[in-house]
Amino acid sequence: MIKLAIDLLGSDLGEEELIEGVKSFLKDHDDIILHLFGNEELLKKHFNTDKIVIHNVSKFVPMEVGALQFLRMKDTSMYQAISSTMELELDGVVSAGSTGGFLTGATLIIKNIPGVHRAGFCAPFLTLKEGKQVAILDIGASNINTPEDLLCFGRLGNVYAKKMWNIEKPSVYLLNNGVEKGKGPDEVKNAYTLFEQCENINFKGNIEAREVMSGEADVVVTSGFPGNIYLKASEGMAKNMSLLLNNAFRHSLMTKISYLLVRKQIKRMKEIMNYKKVGGALTLGLNKVVVKAHGNSDAYSFYHAIDLAYRMASVKMTEAIKKEFE
Amino acid sequence: MIKLAIDLLGSDLGEEELIEGVKSFLKDHDDIILHLFGNEELLKKHFNTDKIVIHNVSKFVPMEVGALQFLRMKDTSMYQAISSTMELELDGVVSAGSTGGFLTGATLIIKNIPGVHRAGFCAPFLTLKEGKQVAILDIGASNINTPEDLLCFGRLGNVYAKKMWNIEKPSVYLLNNGVEKGKGPDEVKNAYTLFEQCENINFKGNIEAREVMSGEADVVVTSGFPGNIYLKASEGMAKNMSLLLNNAFRHSLMTKISYLLVRKQIKRMKEIMNYKKVGGALTLGLNKVVVKAHGNSDAYSFYHAIDLAYRMASVKMTEAIKKEFE
Repeated sequence: MIKLAIDLLGSDLGEEELIEGVKSFLKDHDDIILHLFGNEELLKKHFNTDKIVIHNVSKFVPMEVGALQFLRMKDTSMYQAISSTMELELDGVVSAGSTGGFLTGATLIIKNIPGVHRAGFCAPFLTLKEGKQVAILDIGASNINTPEDLLCFGRLGNVYAKKMWNIEKPSVYLLNNGVEKGKGPDEVKNAYTLFEQCENINFKGNIEAREVMSGEADVVVTSGFPGNIYLKASEGMAKNMSLLLNNAFRHSLMTKISYLLVRKQIKRMKEIMNYKKVGGALTLGLNKVVVKAHGNSDAYSFYHAIDLAYRMASVKMTEAIKKEFE
Repeated sequence: MIKLAIDLLGSDLGEEELIEGVKSFLKDHDDIILHLFGNEELLKKHFNTDKIVIHNVSKFVPMEVGALQFLRMKDTSMYQAISSTMELELDGVVSAGSTGGFLTGATLIIKNIPGVHRAGFCAPFLTLKEGKQVAILDIGASNINTPEDLLCFGRLGNVYAKKMWNIEKPSVYLLNNGVEKGKGPDEVKNAYTLFEQCENINFKGNIEAREVMSGEADVVVTSGFPGNIYLKASEGMAKNMSLLLNNAFRHSLMTKISYLLVRKQIKRMKEIMNYKKVGGALTLGLNKVVVKAHGNSDAYSFYHAIDLAYRMASVKMTEAIKKEFE
């Protein structure tokens, strides 16, 4: 039985949207107990099953919150969801609320697994190989990272790819501004040497940002700041191109007819690039499964965020990481 | 009369491809003298005009070259083109060869304008507003930058946007992982304060990577490493989406017919995103106009790289930057 805490407040599209995601998820899964943190009255209208435990909370953490501010917000749904994960010995926690608040709370309350000196915020990203993902970390939990942090991220990503994707020896790369050894800032250069010396990792060297999605890499390691830039640059370009494409098809009657003829293939293309299927990002290296759903999660996206946490708990990700860092 | 040195060797598609670009450019421009560095015999076949000066060189700089290596390669087309720009008092230099070699050579031979303590490698990038570009710098000449470097990049970009795009008060932003003041690594935080104190710059605060192309920003300032990641992530995603789109239209007879109906609009969309029109990247802050054409430049792209150098020389970019840093 997988037990998850689900924070339902503070997302862009609101509680009702997330509730729909929870409902769909419940339909598809039996071996689960979900602790929902939100409006009891509303939740009681939607749920009447022993797979759901309702925790009544009305306050939420605002999107922009400082670490100290967050720690004073003990009566919010996010704080409650995180702390209950520890107190009630649940397997993990999911939230679509403030990323800053969630990362702070998860780090300070759930805490790093012993031996993990830096947890990594990781985005499973889609690739051109249909169905294949690549794990990129860190994508912004840290601003600056040491070579040792980067090695730690690589070990975490390595376990993730092994367990989630059943890859025996995941291909691990360092994100850099060139493929040759000796490229990049000092922390990347020094991390390169650490990776070369690490026997448990199938280290393949540097990778440039334009090749991350090619499907060659299983894990791409980066400091948090460039990782965040990578993620948002890719998202931005994908969004811009979709926008231009929609405009192209909306131009005239002729182009609208054209769309009808190619619609199925365009949908397939958008499905390959559909980041909502990924559900969100996750923190690797903490004592529980921690999944951050997109702030603008709709029901579909939130379903997949819960599913991500569910699958991580099912493969015993936390235990596997504990073993790696023993 | 604008005088430019053109390095014709060492690009991916070869000398003949670049020659076609030079020929088209010559057709469209009268007030120009181009010093071509390449195979004399070949060049004589193509050119018979007093607008062309041929410099016979057969050796070229390989794509991957170290700084020290480059400095020993005095008999190459790139070295000759760069040093001739100084010796013959030309206005600038264009190359589609090794980026590393070119940046090294330009920095060490052409040298910074007095007062510019760090020249910036700048990509004019396309935006969603048709015809509008945004200048991003640095995109990888440096690995690490100080807050003072970032301010210097901002001042350089500011002059560029004013002169090239006739914008009275260009909007200057810092690339960061959030829009609020206080976000990001120390160098970005400290640069924020420096920009706030700089009266000559219309500083608009932080911008996230996904908004860079929205058309709001005229200049986006970043350290070289995340700048390089930004550029290549965007390129990568654009390329991947184009690939998927082409596959969608090639799927069946029906989708091929669909393409015929929407072709004009798709071409317009690709035209908006056509980075070849930009021609390449440029270094701001050196004593001459320095344009790096894409390594895989075709004739069209190389035409636009020469055009970029030509327009920068025409608006007296170097003089304007000298004045700014007096």
